[in-house]
Amino acid sequence: MFFEFTVSTPSKTALVDITEKIEECIKKSNIKEGRCFIFIPHTTAGIIINENYDPSVVKDIINTLEKLIPWSASYSHTEGNAPAHIKSTILGNQVVAFIQNGRLKLGTWQGIFLAEFDGPRVRKVWVDIIGN
Amino acid sequence: MFFEFTVSTPSKTALVDITEKIEECIKKSNIKEGRCFIFIPHTTAGIIINENYDPSVVKDIINTLEKLIPWSASYSHTEGNAPAHIKSTILGNQVVAFIQNGRLKLGTWQGIFLAEFDGPRVRKVWVDIIGN
Amino acid sequence: MFFEFTVSTPSKTALVDITEKIEECIKKSNIKEGRCFIFIPHTTAGIIINENYDPSVVKDIINTLEKLIPWSASYSHTEGNAPAHIKSTILGNQVVAFIQNGRLKLGTWQGIFLAEFDGPRVRKVWVDIIGN
Repeated sequence: MFFEFTVSTPSKTALVDITEKIEECIKKSNIKEGRCFIFIPHTTAGIIINENYDPSVVKDIINTLEKLIPWSASYSHTEGNAPAHIKSTILGNQVVAFIQNGRLKLGTWQGIFLAEFDGPRVRKVWVDIIGN
Repeated sequence: MFFEFTVSTPSKTALVDITEKIEECIKKSNIKEGRCFIFIPHTTAGIIINENYDPSVVKDIINTLEKLIPWSASYSHTEGNAPAHIKSTILGNQVVAFIQNGRLKLGTWQGIFLAEFDGPRVRKVWVDIIGN
Repeated sequence: MFFEFTVSTPSKTALVDITEKIEECIKKSNIKEGRCFIFIPHTTAGIIINENYDPSVVKDIINTLEKLIPWSASYSHTEGNAPAHIKSTILGNQVVAFIQNGRLKLGTWQGIFLAEFDGPRVRKVWVDIIGN
């Protein structure tokens, strides 16, 4: 079952927690046991799973990627957002997550994030759910 | 349904657009709605999804990875292709993509690329398609 | 079909080959043709596929990640394991692999690894197998 929702990202770079949005898709699907594929159809944003408890983790991820792939370096792509393409490529644009008892089955500290690298923008997220 | 095709990569490092090759597999599968898993069975090449419109994006991805993981650094692996293993590990060897109306459902600017880091070589790509 | 197993990681940082553990899950599942999703429910460890033949490859991956995201840099996250979160985010916490004739279908040199970045610890691995 296929779902799409949108996320308004707040700034140039941000990790936006979309775990609850995915839960809503699973609820609507009425699938109790299965897995969902989460895919972002953009080339300057990604999807990751990591800690959503302490917000300093998100800050460290963003700052370290900026140190490794700085906006200030020189790039060929003339639209000015080359580092956003590169960061997205390194993180990836998709994840799979499991469903048990009609809910996401994640680790205790895990959340699912949209990684924005060229915002603020309205981003689409696609979710494909298959049951057992 | 399982498919395999080969790609001759043109140089040491290259991002080769394989979107059309994947579309051909989907066509042959006759599956109209579903998803496909794309997997490369090599350890010095990867699979990514990013912009296939402006070729300078690909150039920036390649150049930035080379800056971060240079061929000139010193490594333990004596075959001389350690940076290719590391780049592949960071990008990953696989992606999932959705199928709608018998075609790949990608974002406007997205293409699927084989990322070659130790070419030129003939590489295999595996595609596993499942319908709804 | 869903499986869970645990892995005791030997040190702060380590790539632990879990290919045989995955094969055992596939055997138990009795599924001959399909695919398996391998997911780690932790935020300071990842799952990757790369060479499991020459152990120097693993060493180069670990050392290069340490150079790019050093423990000695300064981070916001006060638990002291920020680099482990960042490394895991870059590698990802999951892979898919295909099943043929009741066995993993991998490339000649490929193995599946648990990537530990904040060990030694006992880590859980989740495996979700679906047949054709």
